[in-house]
Amino acid sequence: MQSRLLSAPWTRPAVRAATPRAGRVAVFGGTHGNELSGVALVGMWVKDGAEIQRSGVATTPFIANPRAVERCARYVDTDLNRAFTAENLSALSGDELPYEVRRAQEINRLFGPKGTADAYDVIFDLHNTTSNMGCTLILESSSDHFVLQMVRHVQKACAPAGCSVLLNEHPLLKYSTSRSVAKHPIGLEVGPQPQGVLRSNIFESMRLILKHALDFIELFNCGVEFPACSVDVFRVLERVDYPRDANGNITAMVHPHLQDCDWEPLSSGDPMFQTFDGRTIEYQGPGPVYPAFINEAAYYEKQQAFVTTRRETLSACAVRKLQ
Amino acid sequence: MQSRLLSAPWTRPAVRAATPRAGRVAVFGGTHGNELSGVALVGMWVKDGAEIQRSGVATTPFIANPRAVERCARYVDTDLNRAFTAENLSALSGDELPYEVRRAQEINRLFGPKGTADAYDVIFDLHNTTSNMGCTLILESSSDHFVLQMVRHVQKACAPAGCSVLLNEHPLLKYSTSRSVAKHPIGLEVGPQPQGVLRSNIFESMRLILKHALDFIELFNCGVEFPACSVDVFRVLERVDYPRDANGNITAMVHPHLQDCDWEPLSSGDPMFQTFDGRTIEYQGPGPVYPAFINEAAYYEKQQAFVTTRRETLSACAVRKLQ
Ligand SMILES: [Zn+2]
Ligand SMILES: [Zn+2]
Repeated sequence: MQSRLLSAPWTRPAVRAATPRAGRVAVFGGTHGNELSGVALVGMWVKDGAEIQRSGVATTPFIANPRAVERCARYVDTDLNRAFTAENLSALSGDELPYEVRRAQEINRLFGPKGTADAYDVIFDLHNTTSNMGCTLILESSSDHFVLQMVRHVQKACAPAGCSVLLNEHPLLKYSTSRSVAKHPIGLEVGPQPQGVLRSNIFESMRLILKHALDFIELFNCGVEFPACSVDVFRVLERVDYPRDANGNITAMVHPHLQDCDWEPLSSGDPMFQTFDGRTIEYQGPGPVYPAFINEAAYYEKQQAFVTTRRETLSACAVRKLQ
Repeated sequence: MQSRLLSAPWTRPAVRAATPRAGRVAVFGGTHGNELSGVALVGMWVKDGAEIQRSGVATTPFIANPRAVERCARYVDTDLNRAFTAENLSALSGDELPYEVRRAQEINRLFGPKGTADAYDVIFDLHNTTSNMGCTLILESSSDHFVLQMVRHVQKACAPAGCSVLLNEHPLLKYSTSRSVAKHPIGLEVGPQPQGVLRSNIFESMRLILKHALDFIELFNCGVEFPACSVDVFRVLERVDYPRDANGNITAMVHPHLQDCDWEPLSSGDPMFQTFDGRTIEYQGPGPVYPAFINEAAYYEKQQAFVTTRRETLSACAVRKLQ
């Protein structure tokens, strides 16, 4: 199946994707141990998983980084959600490996191997952000029509509440996620929620989106055909760092006009940062771009104040279960 | 000087407190290393302190827990802001002591000794909370008329923006803070701001309150007399924990009707928690009480979902510098 990235006008693809049944699904919480909505939901489903079971689907709730969860920290040694590289997954096991690399190998054995026919069909990975991004589905491929159809289904089911779609296919900024072990990886990122805090509104939003996504898989496995459609996404363009001094310390903050304005257009000349001494630094560049992950706590150490995206309309061809 | 805790009607005390000049002032940031407004402000003032200097006052900016700041963690071994007990401060030094206990001893040498005439006059300790508390001054004594007058000055200078006052004189819930080393300890707690995040609005609010507080000290040291006045405070009553299971894991979240409603009245029968399976747990007790630190990230481990307070009006007698 070819990737179809169409700017306007959007045209309907003629093909239909016959996709194998999605019988094995996992829901990961605690890939980052201080993102508590996913930790709490998955913890609850480990005790009683009735809510996430569907006819014709075996859904496994799974705490991805239990040691980080125990410490209520993002990670212990290194970011698990960057650890699923070919190099890490093939490294010789041993206690000298960072904890998260060993854990990535274990997850790869349980839900993979990544890139093989034995891998799980779908992994939902539940994350929270301190950014004001609302509900966001994160996709790793613009040509995964099964996932695009799922996104469309979720968006329709959630309306009028919105659910944004972030597409990260960037050759440098794409990273090796926990969910990448599955054939169809899907991140669910809901915010704003501080690290180490569980907010009921965020918890319930996440729960609802997952419900609709599992409903989609059930319908799909029952043989329902989903007609061709279009999906609006925000494609990752580039990382923007904070202004910093020679020691790497930040010298400016996200400007109050940009703070909390994820997904809103940012054009050349718009305020972007405010220095500690009160000066405004403006965005310069082609635009408008659509920022996301604005002032995310975890990304200070990754030299990222926000990521820019551009809007695109993807076309999803009709999908139906392979007979 | 007697403590005067008056409920309505408030009456003016007849006395005037002649207080020694407050010549030595410190501003602490990073008592908790992941509360970034104080860390950023103090870091800035360490480089250039002109903004916090006043005529007749020597103001020292000071990063209280540099190792925690480096890790962007609340603490390394134990909470520094609970470490200033007589036992810790008199413990025999040595590498086997927790880092924060050694640091508390060092701070006590630099700015104390606590409870002696040699101690600094004022320590402002800058904190952030994930709770929606706005700007809050935290007092440790209802009979510190110098501080009460400062609070009144700050409130008038900030109006119409509000600045709440939390009084923690609770025999069990009061704790041994970093600022308690000084003769006049004052906590400044501003939120909501996630841990590990620096928000420009929170940074600027904190900066402004400290400006007005330092202005007060300058006026006081110049001989200005501040007339008797009253100050409305919220007095700490009790700690309320999350519902938990036998393993200590929480089984409910702060109810959406209570979330973000710090300082608003909570009466018997009002929603307080929402269990994961959707049941509402109501507050039961005499009321109304006024909750604060609702869903503060750092207090999950301290078994506290919020603290209840009651409103009181304190009377501050006139203060003037001792001639
Ligand atoms: Zn995450
Ligand atoms: Zn603090």
